[in-house]
Amino acid sequence: MVITVVGLGLIGGSLSIDLKERGFASRIIGVDNNCEHCKIALEKGIADEISSLEEGIEKADLIILSTPADIALLILPRILDLCRSKVVTDVCSTKGSIASEVYSHQNRKQYVASHPMAGTEFSGPKSAFSGLFENKTTIICDKNLSGKQALKIVTNMYKTLNMKIVNMSAYEHDMHAAYVSHISHISSFVLSITVLEKEMDEKKIFELAGGGFESTVRLAKSSANMWVPIFCQNKENIRTVLKTYIEKLCEFDSLIAGGNYEQLHTLISEANKIEKILKK
Amino acid sequence: MVITVVGLGLIGGSLSIDLKERGFASRIIGVDNNCEHCKIALEKGIADEISSLEEGIEKADLIILSTPADIALLILPRILDLCRSKVVTDVCSTKGSIASEVYSHQNRKQYVASHPMAGTEFSGPKSAFSGLFENKTTIICDKNLSGKQALKIVTNMYKTLNMKIVNMSAYEHDMHAAYVSHISHISSFVLSITVLEKEMDEKKIFELAGGGFESTVRLAKSSANMWVPIFCQNKENIRTVLKTYIEKLCEFDSLIAGGNYEQLHTLISEANKIEKILKK
Repeated sequence: MVITVVGLGLIGGSLSIDLKERGFASRIIGVDNNCEHCKIALEKGIADEISSLEEGIEKADLIILSTPADIALLILPRILDLCRSKVVTDVCSTKGSIASEVYSHQNRKQYVASHPMAGTEFSGPKSAFSGLFENKTTIICDKNLSGKQALKIVTNMYKTLNMKIVNMSAYEHDMHAAYVSHISHISSFVLSITVLEKEMDEKKIFELAGGGFESTVRLAKSSANMWVPIFCQNKENIRTVLKTYIEKLCEFDSLIAGGNYEQLHTLISEANKIEKILKK
Repeated sequence: MVITVVGLGLIGGSLSIDLKERGFASRIIGVDNNCEHCKIALEKGIADEISSLEEGIEKADLIILSTPADIALLILPRILDLCRSKVVTDVCSTKGSIASEVYSHQNRKQYVASHPMAGTEFSGPKSAFSGLFENKTTIICDKNLSGKQALKIVTNMYKTLNMKIVNMSAYEHDMHAAYVSHISHISSFVLSITVLEKEMDEKKIFELAGGGFESTVRLAKSSANMWVPIFCQNKENIRTVLKTYIEKLCEFDSLIAGGNYEQLHTLISEANKIEKILKK
């Protein structure tokens, strides 16, 4: 199967590597408006050739849209216009806006909305690697709006990557993603800014940062180009979580201020429960 | 040198393993009021024998106090009473309260206040391992209050572990620790509580949690017994950082609400700078 990957970043690049290696893709055509990304993709063997969007669509059986969410929102309708028989999927971290945008498109059945829940704090084709998706979960949204054949192809693609598939609506997806992914990024970005502003002496941060700080702040390295559109497209859900997060931080602060050690203990023991859940 | 380790947890246990393996300690005497910890410490070879606090002090050349900070505050004066010629150090994450507590002690010169900046989210002797301290930083506080010989012994101990030594006052330590370590834990604890409260369906969290959530929430597994005393002893500094953190979260929320994409972009790019600093 010839696959055109639009957006040769961490996700698009890592998908390409494994889909080709495992024989699901016979050929990968890369599309990216960043020349440097195209060059690296060719060098790393992520793409076999680079082409324009139109040409890439024409030559492909399957199109994977792996650009930031704002670009995906803009170009998915244009791609779908050209896909009466080809299959398209996207890998964006927000699904609601995109779902609405193409809801009434005449070729909607050719499109499968998906979100492979995997990534790192790095971006661009340089960061792409084999195995990123292994044993992770992909969410497929609003599957009833996709045609059987399209769904089968995209499902097989994720199965080739050894991913578990979970189905839900785009609405549910965005709510869960706000809690389990998007708020983590905000918490990290803001932690980084808080520490950087106070600790003018960068050397001190480096010297004193134990493994704890480093892992909590890891996501603060993530790309603004990718995350600003996510925060904007999933605004309502994210603001709901953020409100709760801030309220609970204030509660924590009050307990410290009041010396309510017993309640702090109870709260931390509650927080500890995440260990068992993540281990399951 | 015979070393008595008071508190056979992650830090005390890991110190014991490497100090013995590298020949700095000829014998490790363990002291812990948790029988299970004593049993594990003997089985794992962390301690050569278990004894009472008084007997442990009597037999030792060097005493390492590695209990939670509230216990350390209580027993350090008692230990120092018995140390006219022996050396004592502690490894607590807060230094101000302990410093005040023993400031006028007649044997103050025998005590070196230190904080090896290393750890994991796990606790107890089961979690102890060799190499935890390798290439990390230890802070030694108020070194002028320690005697030369005491300082030499404790410095050599940390050098044996291949740690870098940084000197500062207990006051400075607590301020930096609030920014670089303590706030990360609060941010993680509260993130865990926020997500757990909303996502009643534990299976969903497990399925959807990508690597991002997992690393941001890692510290939420940390022990309440260890962290409640730290939050209480470093209350003022922690509340100052927490105030800034909450303000900046509110600012982030306003930018999302107002659709100020450009400013969000600038803020995230600021946050990204942490990458370069942590890489240095």
